[in-house]
Amino acid sequence: MMSRRIGRQTVMLKNAPGVTAWASVAGQKEHDGPYGALFDAVISDELNGESSFEAAERSILEKAIKLCALKANRKLDEVQMLLAGDLLNQIISAGFAARNLAIPFYGLYGACSTMSESLSLGSMIADGGFADRMICATCSHFCTAERQYRAPLELGNQRTPTAQWTVTGAGAVMVSSGAAARQDRIALTHTTCGRVIDLGITDQNNMGAAMAPAAADTLTAHFDDTGRGFDDFDLVVTGDLGILGRELLIRLLDEKGIRVKEERLFDCGSEIFAKRQDTHCGGSGCGCAASMLCAHILPQLYTGRLKRVLFMATGALLSPTTTMQGESIPGVAHAVVFEHREEIPG
Amino acid sequence: MMSRRIGRQTVMLKNAPGVTAWASVAGQKEHDGPYGALFDAVISDELNGESSFEAAERSILEKAIKLCALKANRKLDEVQMLLAGDLLNQIISAGFAARNLAIPFYGLYGACSTMSESLSLGSMIADGGFADRMICATCSHFCTAERQYRAPLELGNQRTPTAQWTVTGAGAVMVSSGAAARQDRIALTHTTCGRVIDLGITDQNNMGAAMAPAAADTLTAHFDDTGRGFDDFDLVVTGDLGILGRELLIRLLDEKGIRVKEERLFDCGSEIFAKRQDTHCGGSGCGCAASMLCAHILPQLYTGRLKRVLFMATGALLSPTTTMQGESIPGVAHAVVFEHREEIPG
Repeated sequence: MMSRRIGRQTVMLKNAPGVTAWASVAGQKEHDGPYGALFDAVISDELNGESSFEAAERSILEKAIKLCALKANRKLDEVQMLLAGDLLNQIISAGFAARNLAIPFYGLYGACSTMSESLSLGSMIADGGFADRMICATCSHFCTAERQYRAPLELGNQRTPTAQWTVTGAGAVMVSSGAAARQDRIALTHTTCGRVIDLGITDQNNMGAAMAPAAADTLTAHFDDTGRGFDDFDLVVTGDLGILGRELLIRLLDEKGIRVKEERLFDCGSEIFAKRQDTHCGGSGCGCAASMLCAHILPQLYTGRLKRVLFMATGALLSPTTTMQGESIPGVAHAVVFEHREEIPG
Repeated sequence: MMSRRIGRQTVMLKNAPGVTAWASVAGQKEHDGPYGALFDAVISDELNGESSFEAAERSILEKAIKLCALKANRKLDEVQMLLAGDLLNQIISAGFAARNLAIPFYGLYGACSTMSESLSLGSMIADGGFADRMICATCSHFCTAERQYRAPLELGNQRTPTAQWTVTGAGAVMVSSGAAARQDRIALTHTTCGRVIDLGITDQNNMGAAMAPAAADTLTAHFDDTGRGFDDFDLVVTGDLGILGRELLIRLLDEKGIRVKEERLFDCGSEIFAKRQDTHCGGSGCGCAASMLCAHILPQLYTGRLKRVLFMATGALLSPTTTMQGESIPGVAHAVVFEHREEIPG
């Protein structure tokens, strides 16, 4: 057995598993944003016909997974694994969705890094031939996240200038291996597992600042391990650093001697809402990177408009308990590299 | 690339990654139980010198991981990945431990199934050559779990007859791949990814009943996929079904036509405490299966007293929120197969 590791944190996916299908679901506010027309499905209101916000969040994750399977022309029982997680305590959205869909399930927790964590693990599992096809997925919901992490919406608390708005949305990506997957027009080629980085931020309303150091660390590791830089990617996509976090990332990379091509650094959180929507520093939540990846990035990789993209969602690994206990906020980021596959080999 | 799947949910680990080292840490009550002398380390009191129970829980996980690396004669920076999770919201024990230890980190949530979830994912990653060595780990703490899931200890609530006692403990297992790993006397040969099963149990004080159906489902899948049965294993080890859950598992398997050899069915939760310790249905928590695996099972696999063991920890994927919202309790179980490796090839 050959080691597939290159450098300290990166692995090369030598069989280049395929991205067979993807689907996104979003809420009304996300629908009203600049990318609103690109989501596969939009829910009519925050409850989506359910009796609680938690049930609504679960329903949009299930919808994204079902749509993804449908777009791949596969039945749910042909999906061999679901790698998923979410922001809610005990990842109930993912766990209950896995129960309802009856797909064998690995539960993940990476906060807002979950989409890239699931793709990172999933890409290795597919590359090794351990599953013919799996779905990597995550979701978030504004109303569940606010009441769990901050305060019930009914309180009407004022938001701080560094606050971000939790996206109501979900994304699901089918990753496949084997001969059939070589027909897929998008391949996964590398993944980098991130370390947990904490530069001492304690303000739980400033997630961008807490997560930017992890993004800088993982991107530096990826570039060191592969010998690549910004020039080698059409886009480096971050999850939900937000407007402030993105600025901090650029500064941290500059300190490490990495010149950022700003036009190639796309932060989903900074982009998903328009300025007129008054979300302060932008969108956040697992569903932000997941829905934008599926609505905006993967379609361009499919057509070849984008040739190579590094996707790296970041997560803040705090809890309300650690915050109350005076702890600072650790962050984590995992990276996966997608490439457009032009030719379809025999 | 050959598919490594056999049957519907199982993969064969054809490179048979090695189990290089393991370590367990336990609390005083666990030390007083029948397996007390086997743990590598025992903490002196519930705070372990920390200022909160949460910090104490994290410290025992860190201790187990450090001990595991030490026993493998490896520095922490030679460990390429940490796959870990715990019971606390936002898996803060694992996340903060990963921060302090600076090991690249995939965060998992599988409730009390976490030890087998981490070994299931880790065994595939090692088998595929994606990491030379990693640590799979988890922990739990009586005092943190009680206040998060049930009630603060200070209330002194009476426990129901079906209640189990959350183990204060941690376990860490180093899984290795490549040529060096073939020297390891224990190999991982198969893993089965579980589905989320829910037969409608709503009593959050009866976790054994909620988890037994998932254990039955995964064990049936493993036996179906591999053509094996109880006769092929020296032990089938479950995590923390407890005394009642273990009885239910035997009955559920019987209904599926699987005859259980009771003397070969070892439930860590049923065994970790003595009857005189009055824990009602036994131990529970991620740390139960993890510490017992490392203290009692792996040493016997190392010496060859046990030749082949199926290890399957089960998790209940409820949250206090879903319970309050009237939902039933889904369970999940993942299985890994360990084998003693007698001969050391070239």
